[in-house]
Amino acid sequence: MKIVCSKANLAKGVSTVSKAVPSKTTMPILECVLIDATLDVIKLTANDMELGIQTEVEGEIIEHGMIAIDARIFSEIVRKLPDNDVVIETDENLQATITCEKANFNISCKPGDEFSYLPIIEKDTTISISQYTLKEVIRQTIFSIADNESNKVMTGELFEINQNTLRVVSLDGHRISIRKLELKEEYDHKKIIVPGKTLIEISKILSGEADKEVCIYFTENHIVFEFDRTVVVSRLIEGEYFRIDQMLSSDYETKVRINKKELLNCIDRATLLIKEGDKKPIIINIGDEIMELKIKSQLGSMNEEIFITKEGKDLLIGFNPKFLIDALRVIDDEEVELYLMNAKAPCFIKDETESYIYLILPVNFNSI
Amino acid sequence: MKIVCSKANLAKGVSTVSKAVPSKTTMPILECVLIDATLDVIKLTANDMELGIQTEVEGEIIEHGMIAIDARIFSEIVRKLPDNDVVIETDENLQATITCEKANFNISCKPGDEFSYLPIIEKDTTISISQYTLKEVIRQTIFSIADNESNKVMTGELFEINQNTLRVVSLDGHRISIRKLELKEEYDHKKIIVPGKTLIEISKILSGEADKEVCIYFTENHIVFEFDRTVVVSRLIEGEYFRIDQMLSSDYETKVRINKKELLNCIDRATLLIKEGDKKPIIINIGDEIMELKIKSQLGSMNEEIFITKEGKDLLIGFNPKFLIDALRVIDDEEVELYLMNAKAPCFIKDETESYIYLILPVNFNSI
Repeated sequence: MKIVCSKANLAKGVSTVSKAVPSKTTMPILECVLIDATLDVIKLTANDMELGIQTEVEGEIIEHGMIAIDARIFSEIVRKLPDNDVVIETDENLQATITCEKANFNISCKPGDEFSYLPIIEKDTTISISQYTLKEVIRQTIFSIADNESNKVMTGELFEINQNTLRVVSLDGHRISIRKLELKEEYDHKKIIVPGKTLIEISKILSGEADKEVCIYFTENHIVFEFDRTVVVSRLIEGEYFRIDQMLSSDYETKVRINKKELLNCIDRATLLIKEGDKKPIIINIGDEIMELKIKSQLGSMNEEIFITKEGKDLLIGFNPKFLIDALRVIDDEEVELYLMNAKAPCFIKDETESYIYLILPVNFNSI
Repeated sequence: MKIVCSKANLAKGVSTVSKAVPSKTTMPILECVLIDATLDVIKLTANDMELGIQTEVEGEIIEHGMIAIDARIFSEIVRKLPDNDVVIETDENLQATITCEKANFNISCKPGDEFSYLPIIEKDTTISISQYTLKEVIRQTIFSIADNESNKVMTGELFEINQNTLRVVSLDGHRISIRKLELKEEYDHKKIIVPGKTLIEISKILSGEADKEVCIYFTENHIVFEFDRTVVVSRLIEGEYFRIDQMLSSDYETKVRINKKELLNCIDRATLLIKEGDKKPIIINIGDEIMELKIKSQLGSMNEEIFITKEGKDLLIGFNPKFLIDALRVIDDEEVELYLMNAKAPCFIKDETESYIYLILPVNFNSI
C-alpha cells in the first residue's frame, strides 16, 4: 500500500476514528486503526466491537492495500509531523514507513484483514437533524445517565420517535432529564436505547454546525450516524426502558419563577462548603418573593436570598446541590420555572411547551 | 475586625499569598491566611516557614483587628463571590462572616496571633531588575534543578553577583543551565543559593511586565523580593555551590549552526517513540551540511535530516532527547550554535556573548 495525504486531513481523520479505540483491551488488534486503500478512497476505521467509526480521508492512492497500525502511536506521529504531504507506504513485512519532508518513521503493523469490519447496516428509516441540534441534545441530557453497570439500561439514553417528535431521556434513579425535538417529517413509533459512551464520543466528533446534517438510521441492534464523510455505528442496549411517563406529573402546589444565573451562581457558591463525597443538602426555603438557600457543613455555613415570583404555598425542601447545578447549566433560558408539590415529591424544572423537563428528587434534611 | 474590599482586589491578594500555603503540613495554622488590619492597611500573609508572602489589599478598615482563616476555603469563597464589595467581619468567638450582595458565609477561624510573622529583614544591598527579566531568567533555568532532596544544593539556583552582572545557574548532574544578566549598577561579589520552589512560586506571582521593577535584598539566610505592594521572603539554601567554572570549556572540535525550531520539532517527534521512563537516546550524526537524527525503540524507528553549517570534525553522539528539548525551548534565538568535543564530552549550546550557556552531557549508545 502507498498513499499520500495532507497532514491536516490525516490528523483530522485519525482524531475522529480514535474515539472508538478502547483504552483497555485484551485484543491488540482493537488498539489499531485500519487504513484501507483497497478501493478508490482512503478509509480509516476503528472499532471496539460496541462502537465503530469510519471516516474518509482525502488523498491519493498510489498502490492499493490495507494495514492495521497502532492507533496511539500513529495519531501522535501524525499530529507532530510538519504541515505538509504525508506518504504512508507498507512493505510485505508489515512495516509502515511514514514520511513527511525529511522526517521518516518506521513502525511495525498488523495485517489489515485481522481487523473486524463495521457491521453492514440496512438503511431503513432515516431521520435527519442538524449537527448542532444533536450535539446540544446530548450535552443537555448526558449528565444524568448512571455510570454504574448494575443496571445497563440506565447507562444509555432513550431515543423515542413519535410522529414528528424525537424525545431523548436519561435517568439515574435520582433525576430524569428529558428533551423534546421537532423533526421535519413524521415517522413510525420507535424506541431504542443508545449507549451513553456512544453519545459522548459522537458529540466530540460532531462539528456542531447548524447547517450541517446528521442522518440517523436504526436497526434491531444498531444505530448509525452519518455526517461529514464519517460513519459511526453503535450497538444498542437491549432491554425495556423505564416507563417515565408515569413518573411525570403536572400537578403542583408551589410554582417559582427565578433568574437562572442567580440561582446557579448561588448554588455553585454553596457547594464550596461541601467536601467531595460529603452528602450535605442545600436547603431551599420558598417564601413570598424571596427564596432563601442555606447550607451547613463542618467548614462553615452559608445563606443567601434570591428574589422570585411565587404562586401557591410556601415550602421548605432539600436537594443535592449537584443535581440542581447539572440541570440549570444546560438550560439556556434566562428565567426558569420550578414546580413543586411538597418536601417529599420531585421538583420539576420545565418550560411551557415542555421542550425540556428536568425532574429532581428531593433529599431529607435536618432543619438548620 | 471589620473590613471592606472589592472582590477583585481581595481575589488577587488571596491568590498571591496562597502560593506560600503548604499543601501538606502538620501545623494547621500554616494552612491559613492571616488577614491583618491592626494598622491602617489591610495585609494578607501566608508563610510555610521556608517561604513567606505578604501583600497589601486596597480596602477600608472599619474596625481594626486580625484573624487567621483557612486559605483554601477562603480563596474559593472569594473567587466565587459576585463582583462587588466584600465585607469581612469577625466576632469574639473567632467566627468570620463574609458578606457580598445577598450571599453570606460563616467560617470558623483561628486567632491571628498564633500566626508566625515574616522575619524582619534588614535591607542592605538592593538590586533592581524588571519583572519581565526575573520571570524570564527563572523560566530559562528552573527546568534543570534536581528534584530530589539527596543533594539540597541542587534543588536551588545559584544567584551570583559580580560587579554589574547577575549570573543564575542550575544543574542536576546531567546538565547545567547558565544565564547572565547585566545590572544597572556595580555591586560587591555575592553568591547565594535560592530554593527552586521559591523561584517557581515567585514566577507565578510576577506580572512579567518589562516596565515594573522587582527589588531584591539579601541577608545571610534570606532573600527578599519586593514588587507590586507584595513582599516575598525566602530562606536561602545553606552550603557551597558547585564550582561550575571548572566544568565550562571553550575548546571544541565540532561547531554546528542550526535552525532552532527545526531541531526542536525533530527531537520532539522522535520522543513519540519513547515510552515514559524508557531511556532511549537520540543519536545525532553530524556530517558536512547535514545532521542526521535517529531514534529506535520497541515501537519503531525514526530518522530525519536537517541542514546545518558545520566547522570541524564529523561526530556521532547520543543524548537524552528531553535535555536537548528543555534547553532549546527556552532559547529565543532563531539559530543556535552547538559546540562539541567528542562523543564522551559535554555539548555546549551558547551564544557569542555567553548570555546563555546550556551544557548537556552525552549518553552512551549502541550504534543503530
